[in-house]
Amino acid sequence: MSSAQVYLDGHFLPLTEARVSVEDRGFLFGDGVYEVLRASAGRLYEEEAHWRRLASSCREVALTLPEGLPAGGLRALALELLARNGLGEGEATVYLQLTRGAAPRTHHFPPPGTRPTLYLSAAAFAPPWEARTRGVQAITLPDVRWSRCNIKSINLLPNTLAKQRAREAGAAEAVFVRDGVLTEGASTTVFAVLDGALVTHPNGPHILPGVTRDVVLALARAAGIPVHERPLRLEEREHFDELFVASTTLDLAPVVALDGQPVGAGRPGPVTRALQQAFYAAQGVTPPTLG
Amino acid sequence: MSSAQVYLDGHFLPLTEARVSVEDRGFLFGDGVYEVLRASAGRLYEEEAHWRRLASSCREVALTLPEGLPAGGLRALALELLARNGLGEGEATVYLQLTRGAAPRTHHFPPPGTRPTLYLSAAAFAPPWEARTRGVQAITLPDVRWSRCNIKSINLLPNTLAKQRAREAGAAEAVFVRDGVLTEGASTTVFAVLDGALVTHPNGPHILPGVTRDVVLALARAAGIPVHERPLRLEEREHFDELFVASTTLDLAPVVALDGQPVGAGRPGPVTRALQQAFYAAQGVTPPTLG
Repeated sequence: MSSAQVYLDGHFLPLTEARVSVEDRGFLFGDGVYEVLRASAGRLYEEEAHWRRLASSCREVALTLPEGLPAGGLRALALELLARNGLGEGEATVYLQLTRGAAPRTHHFPPPGTRPTLYLSAAAFAPPWEARTRGVQAITLPDVRWSRCNIKSINLLPNTLAKQRAREAGAAEAVFVRDGVLTEGASTTVFAVLDGALVTHPNGPHILPGVTRDVVLALARAAGIPVHERPLRLEEREHFDELFVASTTLDLAPVVALDGQPVGAGRPGPVTRALQQAFYAAQGVTPPTLG
Repeated sequence: MSSAQVYLDGHFLPLTEARVSVEDRGFLFGDGVYEVLRASAGRLYEEEAHWRRLASSCREVALTLPEGLPAGGLRALALELLARNGLGEGEATVYLQLTRGAAPRTHHFPPPGTRPTLYLSAAAFAPPWEARTRGVQAITLPDVRWSRCNIKSINLLPNTLAKQRAREAGAAEAVFVRDGVLTEGASTTVFAVLDGALVTHPNGPHILPGVTRDVVLALARAAGIPVHERPLRLEEREHFDELFVASTTLDLAPVVALDGQPVGAGRPGPVTRALQQAFYAAQGVTPPTLG
């Protein structure tokens, strides 16, 4: 099998040859932003929402795309990358990262003219139907992250540490708790169902404005499910009838146990199921196993 | 002039050839830690304190050094790097970064056996005597960083943004304020003098345990200057007789204006000067211009 092709700094090349300078500010400072998109049969899901969020992240940290991108921009690059990897047909993900480029190390921004580093990769994607169907376990951890979590930056050390802790606990996700409030998962949005209403943290500096989050909220409203965007306190935990997490790769996955204790009935609940069904119906997808 | 030599993954090579995989977790997640050391005539300043702090950072994020380092370890690498760059005699800095290595992107840790990436660079260093002598301007900014600032990680996006803001304001440093408290600068420890006493934030999760910080505190105590390690509130600002910042590269630099307003008399103060003189006397260095 040939090596995966990636895009780096204006060129498509094998992953094994794709290297950046040790002076890249992504490597030295985590000075960059990213997005992960889903693709199916060469079509990008919720593409506009991802590009809007990328633009917002870039604006917040004063990053710009490199000059001289092909006509069609990032979309064209993503689609060409999928095609070059033989992923024009099936399920795939596209990873996109932009950093402030390579320059002698100074905390402040590099000299004008320093070319930002743009990197894209694509991979075949096996949808996690078991997690979506049977649900997952999650743990809670203190939210030690910075207070600009609305920026999708590559400063992800706390997220990697949290995911590792979750993994070691046999859980799929870590849910961050800041000042007693469930903010979001290490790579997901968190939703609870209380008394038939859907509750999730309001957008703001403490969570990422999730693309799937918006889709879920719209589906809930369309289905007549009451929606409350408000801080969800850990001390309300006993009243969670259901809990689920959502992201671009997970879609919606029930959380059936939190910190080792069952949530609600300890199995995927009816509101989560209804939202999952609405989610796939809206895409014209028939889930293979969703009960 | 020949290219600078760096050390990367077991080899000394020209900086221009030193590249890491796009899958390096330093590049993708900022999943790494670092140190900056000073060298003078081939001797590393406060070496043991830097190695201890590096070990602490590694422990906090479960990072280990790659196997197969030469006898003498990091110290030997740093000294050889200095020699290879013709920096065995003058003033220099050594930068050292360790990441969790290259592996397919997953938030959780990569498979066992993934080799950590170790990178060292060295550069000639021009001591910033003007800043130390005349003092610098600083601005205050909200401390939006994570709450594990005691780890010297490469998740430095908030620091780069703050340093850039300072630079745009004509200042040399940005001082972070968390809940009304001056924690530390974007790359320095902050000290104030109030009523003849030296005040600085206590060590803990909100500041880096500065190597120069410890040196300054020891010198102050030895000189009979009262030392208070306590939260320093921005609202005490009018009572700051002096303010200074300290770091491995800056040593001690008076802050003569904060947010555009003079601190104390608006010029380097006597306690700062006494500590600077004690600092250089302890090193047997005669500062060229320190008044």
